[in-house]
Amino acid sequence: MKLYQLSPPFKSKKLIFLVLALLLWGSNFAVFAQVTLKDSLLFGAEVYIEPTQTPEEIDGYFKTLQEQGFSLTRIRITENYCKNKAGDWDFTLFDYAFKAAEKHHIKVYGNLFPLVDEKEIGGLKFPQTQENLKSIETYIQKTVLHFKQFKSLYGWVPINEPGSGRVPKNSFAAAKFESWLNNQQQLLQNNLPNYVDSPFKEEAFLKDYNTWYLTWLVSEIKKWDNQHPIHVNNHAIFQLAAEYDFPAWRAQISSLGGSAHASWHFSYFDRQHYTTAISANSEILRAGAGPLPWLMTELQGGTNVFSGSAPLLPTVKEINQWLWTVISTGSKGALFWSLNSRKAGLEAGEWAMLNYQNQPSERLLSSGKIAKLISNNQSLFSNASVMESGINLLYVRESMWTDKRFASGNDKDFEARKAGSGIKSALAFFQAFADLGIQCNFKEIAEFDFSKSDFSNTTIVLANQIALPQSYNQKLENFVAKGGTLIVEGLSAYFNQNEQFNLGKNFPLSSLFGGSVSEFQIVADKFSVSLASAALPKLAAHYIIGNIIPKTSKPIAYFGKKVIGTENIYGKGRVVWLPTLLGLGAQITNNYQPLANFLASLNLSSSFQFKNYQSNVYTKTLQAENANTTTLINKSNSIKTVEFNRNMQNIRVIFNDDEGFIKQQKIKIYPNQTMVFTWN
Amino acid sequence: MKLYQLSPPFKSKKLIFLVLALLLWGSNFAVFAQVTLKDSLLFGAEVYIEPTQTPEEIDGYFKTLQEQGFSLTRIRITENYCKNKAGDWDFTLFDYAFKAAEKHHIKVYGNLFPLVDEKEIGGLKFPQTQENLKSIETYIQKTVLHFKQFKSLYGWVPINEPGSGRVPKNSFAAAKFESWLNNQQQLLQNNLPNYVDSPFKEEAFLKDYNTWYLTWLVSEIKKWDNQHPIHVNNHAIFQLAAEYDFPAWRAQISSLGGSAHASWHFSYFDRQHYTTAISANSEILRAGAGPLPWLMTELQGGTNVFSGSAPLLPTVKEINQWLWTVISTGSKGALFWSLNSRKAGLEAGEWAMLNYQNQPSERLLSSGKIAKLISNNQSLFSNASVMESGINLLYVRESMWTDKRFASGNDKDFEARKAGSGIKSALAFFQAFADLGIQCNFKEIAEFDFSKSDFSNTTIVLANQIALPQSYNQKLENFVAKGGTLIVEGLSAYFNQNEQFNLGKNFPLSSLFGGSVSEFQIVADKFSVSLASAALPKLAAHYIIGNIIPKTSKPIAYFGKKVIGTENIYGKGRVVWLPTLLGLGAQITNNYQPLANFLASLNLSSSFQFKNYQSNVYTKTLQAENANTTTLINKSNSIKTVEFNRNMQNIRVIFNDDEGFIKQQKIKIYPNQTMVFTWN
Amino acid sequence: MKLYQLSPPFKSKKLIFLVLALLLWGSNFAVFAQVTLKDSLLFGAEVYIEPTQTPEEIDGYFKTLQEQGFSLTRIRITENYCKNKAGDWDFTLFDYAFKAAEKHHIKVYGNLFPLVDEKEIGGLKFPQTQENLKSIETYIQKTVLHFKQFKSLYGWVPINEPGSGRVPKNSFAAAKFESWLNNQQQLLQNNLPNYVDSPFKEEAFLKDYNTWYLTWLVSEIKKWDNQHPIHVNNHAIFQLAAEYDFPAWRAQISSLGGSAHASWHFSYFDRQHYTTAISANSEILRAGAGPLPWLMTELQGGTNVFSGSAPLLPTVKEINQWLWTVISTGSKGALFWSLNSRKAGLEAGEWAMLNYQNQPSERLLSSGKIAKLISNNQSLFSNASVMESGINLLYVRESMWTDKRFASGNDKDFEARKAGSGIKSALAFFQAFADLGIQCNFKEIAEFDFSKSDFSNTTIVLANQIALPQSYNQKLENFVAKGGTLIVEGLSAYFNQNEQFNLGKNFPLSSLFGGSVSEFQIVADKFSVSLASAALPKLAAHYIIGNIIPKTSKPIAYFGKKVIGTENIYGKGRVVWLPTLLGLGAQITNNYQPLANFLASLNLSSSFQFKNYQSNVYTKTLQAENANTTTLINKSNSIKTVEFNRNMQNIRVIFNDDEGFIKQQKIKIYPNQTMVFTWN
Repeated sequence: MKLYQLSPPFKSKKLIFLVLALLLWGSNFAVFAQVTLKDSLLFGAEVYIEPTQTPEEIDGYFKTLQEQGFSLTRIRITENYCKNKAGDWDFTLFDYAFKAAEKHHIKVYGNLFPLVDEKEIGGLKFPQTQENLKSIETYIQKTVLHFKQFKSLYGWVPINEPGSGRVPKNSFAAAKFESWLNNQQQLLQNNLPNYVDSPFKEEAFLKDYNTWYLTWLVSEIKKWDNQHPIHVNNHAIFQLAAEYDFPAWRAQISSLGGSAHASWHFSYFDRQHYTTAISANSEILRAGAGPLPWLMTELQGGTNVFSGSAPLLPTVKEINQWLWTVISTGSKGALFWSLNSRKAGLEAGEWAMLNYQNQPSERLLSSGKIAKLISNNQSLFSNASVMESGINLLYVRESMWTDKRFASGNDKDFEARKAGSGIKSALAFFQAFADLGIQCNFKEIAEFDFSKSDFSNTTIVLANQIALPQSYNQKLENFVAKGGTLIVEGLSAYFNQNEQFNLGKNFPLSSLFGGSVSEFQIVADKFSVSLASAALPKLAAHYIIGNIIPKTSKPIAYFGKKVIGTENIYGKGRVVWLPTLLGLGAQITNNYQPLANFLASLNLSSSFQFKNYQSNVYTKTLQAENANTTTLINKSNSIKTVEFNRNMQNIRVIFNDDEGFIKQQKIKIYPNQTMVFTWN
Repeated sequence: MKLYQLSPPFKSKKLIFLVLALLLWGSNFAVFAQVTLKDSLLFGAEVYIEPTQTPEEIDGYFKTLQEQGFSLTRIRITENYCKNKAGDWDFTLFDYAFKAAEKHHIKVYGNLFPLVDEKEIGGLKFPQTQENLKSIETYIQKTVLHFKQFKSLYGWVPINEPGSGRVPKNSFAAAKFESWLNNQQQLLQNNLPNYVDSPFKEEAFLKDYNTWYLTWLVSEIKKWDNQHPIHVNNHAIFQLAAEYDFPAWRAQISSLGGSAHASWHFSYFDRQHYTTAISANSEILRAGAGPLPWLMTELQGGTNVFSGSAPLLPTVKEINQWLWTVISTGSKGALFWSLNSRKAGLEAGEWAMLNYQNQPSERLLSSGKIAKLISNNQSLFSNASVMESGINLLYVRESMWTDKRFASGNDKDFEARKAGSGIKSALAFFQAFADLGIQCNFKEIAEFDFSKSDFSNTTIVLANQIALPQSYNQKLENFVAKGGTLIVEGLSAYFNQNEQFNLGKNFPLSSLFGGSVSEFQIVADKFSVSLASAALPKLAAHYIIGNIIPKTSKPIAYFGKKVIGTENIYGKGRVVWLPTLLGLGAQITNNYQPLANFLASLNLSSSFQFKNYQSNVYTKTLQAENANTTTLINKSNSIKTVEFNRNMQNIRVIFNDDEGFIKQQKIKIYPNQTMVFTWN
Repeated sequence: MKLYQLSPPFKSKKLIFLVLALLLWGSNFAVFAQVTLKDSLLFGAEVYIEPTQTPEEIDGYFKTLQEQGFSLTRIRITENYCKNKAGDWDFTLFDYAFKAAEKHHIKVYGNLFPLVDEKEIGGLKFPQTQENLKSIETYIQKTVLHFKQFKSLYGWVPINEPGSGRVPKNSFAAAKFESWLNNQQQLLQNNLPNYVDSPFKEEAFLKDYNTWYLTWLVSEIKKWDNQHPIHVNNHAIFQLAAEYDFPAWRAQISSLGGSAHASWHFSYFDRQHYTTAISANSEILRAGAGPLPWLMTELQGGTNVFSGSAPLLPTVKEINQWLWTVISTGSKGALFWSLNSRKAGLEAGEWAMLNYQNQPSERLLSSGKIAKLISNNQSLFSNASVMESGINLLYVRESMWTDKRFASGNDKDFEARKAGSGIKSALAFFQAFADLGIQCNFKEIAEFDFSKSDFSNTTIVLANQIALPQSYNQKLENFVAKGGTLIVEGLSAYFNQNEQFNLGKNFPLSSLFGGSVSEFQIVADKFSVSLASAALPKLAAHYIIGNIIPKTSKPIAYFGKKVIGTENIYGKGRVVWLPTLLGLGAQITNNYQPLANFLASLNLSSSFQFKNYQSNVYTKTLQAENANTTTLINKSNSIKTVEFNRNMQNIRVIFNDDEGFIKQQKIKIYPNQTMVFTWN
């Protein structure tokens, strides 16, 4: 395991820590788990602790967890529940919880939650004043010192769902921004990468400000507890990913996590495609974690009445689908939000896996069974790795910044001009590949390892990534020259990192792409694009075409007589360039088959995949030493018969929640069914 | 007449005042009228007085009122029209009006209207500074002292349309809020009801702030004129009702009023249902007035071009419908807004009952005829009371607060998640009962008299009243135990008064309701609910179901196999619980018949009502000593034949504006026709 | 040529200047061109100069202009590109441009562009502080002194696109407002027209503030260069026209200009009607220029991807249509925005006539051909005048102010209640006349010359001009008395200039109009109005009717039995009054034929026009000494055969971009074709 991107002083400490953790593995210190990619999977649900709960009630929640086969929870240690009427620190309420956890063998992630206005339901994202920072410092000291004594303490979550979309408007942030700007000037003087001339100063600062605060929180924790792992959960990944500097975070945390709630975070998807959302979200976290383990920290467990933007009570089958999707993307388990519902405020009576009588819902029972199944088959999972297809959907931080800045606030505007057009384009490709049974990596471009010497059988897709920093030009050339396939779609590379037009006379990638664009033409909301290969059906496109003037490339797609797609051989690799919006075209028409067929025709991956295109059927495979474990989910409205491109041996179904079955390599699967099977 | 809820010191004064008023009744001091429920009805229209009007023009307005048989007006005594160029007080303009009123025997409500920015077309809602308060004080002194001399002065309206939706952002309000908070702390120390721990501090303060300001205004008036009655008119009742503390106001005012303009206030209704709106608005005011008389202070009289959100010129028939609906809900008459149109600004050329040549419109002529008819038949009206059905739709102040806080700003969201979902649900039941010919009380829950010893033949409906204060739990139990029927629909009682979840393990009403909800499930925008009684058609429902676990109750409604409706016998009464949105279901499908049929099947009321369901036909009945007076309005698009469940004697049609007629107890009535008849 | 409306001291200077200019005409000082109505036409495109451009690149742009037959450009002299790293003035970058211009015989309008936040892509509209003003002063001194040396300098554009929709919120503007208010008080004391009692103080100030700033800028330029002409370009004319005081500007400028970009400014139009937009925009500028020449300063030349509200790449045929429409409205040429695309920020890669390889697009080639054609036929154009139809659509500044104030922010509201309802109504009449082949003047009412002694064959149309200042009452009476036809539609004259209702009992125009309105009635979004003349089809109307009580007039239109249109003979003229929204009715139904037929039936103009109604065919004619030049454009979707009401001699087609042709006075013209021909 390569520990790249760790800063030097920490690197060695981290290694020592990891070694220590490995040594302790399996001992009674198993509580220090999930710091390596080989750790066991753990499951559970957040126990929401709040005043008025009795010790018995709290004990009951942990008892329920244990009974259902769960072993992990996370508790929000809300500061204003930690003081008595006199204003003195009083952790009694939470002591009940940590003791009950000990009693029922449940591990607890302690989620720090300093004082914040009650309307800020997600907690404090940044300190508001210097005094506030001081107060948080005290809170951390008191809390960490108090709870580190409990054997049930599993680790710390220093902040709930960092990421807020904007720099807060207060003098604390303003001062931080000022000092950040000074630092950028110094970097400039030392010829280091900086944001001095960037139109994205604020965005860049926000990214670093998140990292600064996380680092500060972790250092405060470590003042008092240098042993327990640190975990952090990001939310709204499709909106906020550009704010999260995962590679920088890896030095601070032991494992990466996420919150992925259909009711809050999946506004780019309809209900049928929530599986896509969970899958893509998981891939982004997996990529963000890099060499560290990752764990889905919050999965929606119950109903949503007033809070959230898309109200929903997940069905048992959806719970199965989400859980297995997370597992098959290599998560070290999952926690549901939440076991019990809170009693006051916006989320009261919502989200819970228990019903209002504190009895387990069918959802809880089913996820408990899955937890036990995995606990009994850890060898299949804890040492497994996600099967590699070689395909990498890359999103670009600066593209998300540009998208957001240029987004029209008008709901009726073209999809291409709304917020998130870049990430939506990438998601459309993710969907098209999923329909082929191909699982893709989904990485920020900086997370991709450009340092290899051979990129045969490796594909990078830049789907409508409008801003491409100059620093990647040579990396991409190198990638292709060394055998990689680069697919460039939509308005990718229109700008560089500074909102400067890239595609003009001196287009730096023209020799790599084998040509250049002469003009962009606005066409229509929906239109068709024809392909050179007569065998392929037309593709749906959206909004715009770039008219390519090929130099070394050969045309592969047309709008009328205009060349709008080319293939260029460069070194040992090739570039497929399609400067029109095919991802959004597929999304708008809700028909991914033509795009998938086109991608299939490019012969990008020979990995384990469907024999034929399957609309809305999902598969992911984990590879362990002894066996592969494949998850198959049918989100279409009809019974499907699925075949893979391998002759599978020793097929054994380990999970199945409907009547579908496997017979002679053919899998019959019912709508909404999830099936999991192992094979060699 | 019971004078409950008056504070002790005032109670006696008030009684003395009432006795005095009664003694003076019929004398030449008839000007002190409408302070008791037995007062005569008076009609008219607001004369809008503004600069550039000549004494002749002003006299002409009052002459017109007199000629049309009107006897009442209201005048806005705009402060900036009360000063001459030198800045000295000069009431000349208004003197013309009060003198013309004397000459033409028109009584005048003087509406105080202190200085305000001209864009604030509805006037000042709260003082803005301490100096502003001082200036208002002076204005009141000058104005009251000046006009109390006029015999035409009928009473004072201390403020136009209190209620503004929010606490103003100024230091005056902030200081008041501070002192209010201190007072709440004191209440807490004395174990009195308070809002110290409430998330609704601001809402509660706004309610009390309105009461404070009204009280202050009244006390300022009474410094200079202790004789004339006080009247106040609320507006936008369906949006702002939670802001109006009517029981507290009763100590300050002689009669309660309202502004009910289709173009401004009925955004929850389409034009066909404006009669429902007027009717429900009237019922809310009647309930708010309690033992005091009430009067519709402003009814839209003319066209609306630029102002208002729903532009409209009412037809003559609409004017008839609105006027008779108001009368048959016990109003002591009505004033139209306005006689003449103002000349400048947003409402210029709008709203008037006179045309631009100052000639009476058909609307004015028709309402004048009604005024004369009633003047000639006062015995039928002034001593009459609204016929009681025993059915009480209750809205809950805290529910409206919660609705507003949780309302999504998204127009495309579920109706259940938009502003006003609670009041809309109640209105849907109001409509369903109306289609059965049953007139309902429409009260804030605090206005309902829970102190009786027998509630047989009494029904309370809580339609989607999401927040139910704990203080009502026992009152409701008592109500049912003593024979009442309680219908609980939608998300009623989801929260208590503090946004705390009520329906959990310790649901305080579970024995009353005979069970509890296990979970809420989001279903769809529209879906169907089946009833245990096979005779009844399915009900349209919206958004959500609560899955009931019955204990002592018996199931009466299902979604699939889930029990979502129960009936529970409790003491001498029963509770019908339907935790799904049937009112909004009826509203969205614009089909109230299934809901009405279901309500009819519950045999709630044997009062005078339709024999059969009648879509969009309205009826209300006044009971006087000698005769009943029934108003019947057909708002459907077809001719209807209506029968009642009584054998009526001595039927006499006293008003009829179309060709429909009564023959052998059967009433034929044309679309948009209003018919009024007396019977025994 | 009459130089009215020039203030006395300037008048003589201006005359001297003009004489001087005329004397120099044709000499090597031809650079001082376009200061009279007889000047030659010049064409070109803005060269966008920005850092990173090399001298060669810049030279290339001018070379291209020259090669394509262009002779004019405009350059934005961006202040922050005029300083070197040390912060000293350094005009090197722009020197390249002015030198290249000299070399390639291109004339340059120098567009002053002082420092502004880069997000303000359109430049600084007003100084922000006193220091800012000082800084602008310095910038102007440095810039003007530096560039006046270049022979290529053609003139100055002191500000880009003045007009911003609102008074900026800063203390500089506040101080200016204060002093403006004082000035209004003084005007009041001297009985001069003033805005002391106006509700439109802010709007009136904004108009004068624009004029003040323009005047200040011009005076600063003239401090250092008293020779070069001054040109200014307005934008968003349909939204901002009320802000532009063109008659007052005439004293400051040599020629008037405009920016007319489909992607930014034509939100009231769909793509098919952009020709209407260009045509109306041109007419407004022509009227604004009055005795001065006008020139279309910015016409959209290229694609629009992110900026702009209606993204678009114009086709070659659209470019032809726009250019010929501008030319045939008497423009002294046109500049496209822009030759090359800028490299950074919101408009990067957009708008250009060159492609990304800096090669001419088909659009550039085609407009170059037109430029050459005109250059070779200057006698047809430079001395030509726009053919006069005698029809004047007048818009009223105060109407636009009132419209804007009353506009509902609700997209779903009636069209009549949205922003721009007055100007949209006028545009609907413009379209209806266009479909008859009649070209209309489109003037602010103050730009109309009411001083003539005979108005036979002259028509004024007030289409839904809601506010009519009192000062025009007598002017309009005089106009009609002297033979003019006045058409008054919609809510025209509802208010006077002070938002005061005009149509009441003392309606000042009742004898002119021959009656008065009794009431306005809201009807529906769409409804039909019948005409007295049985031969005419019903007209589509919108929202409202005014019920007319005729006195001397005779009814000509009805809604049911209500008279809603009259004709009144007054003196030698007549008034056609239709207080209902027929323009918006035509717009909403997208059917202008009934309205056009009705207008045709009024026999308003016998000028050169179509024999028959032609939907979406446009024509405009220039009259020169030797020949008329007619432009004909088919924007319908079908091939049209067009005949005119004249027997044309010596027809010669000089431009044609499709297969249509002329044969025996009949013109066959294809969809989107533009044809230009001369005749006698």
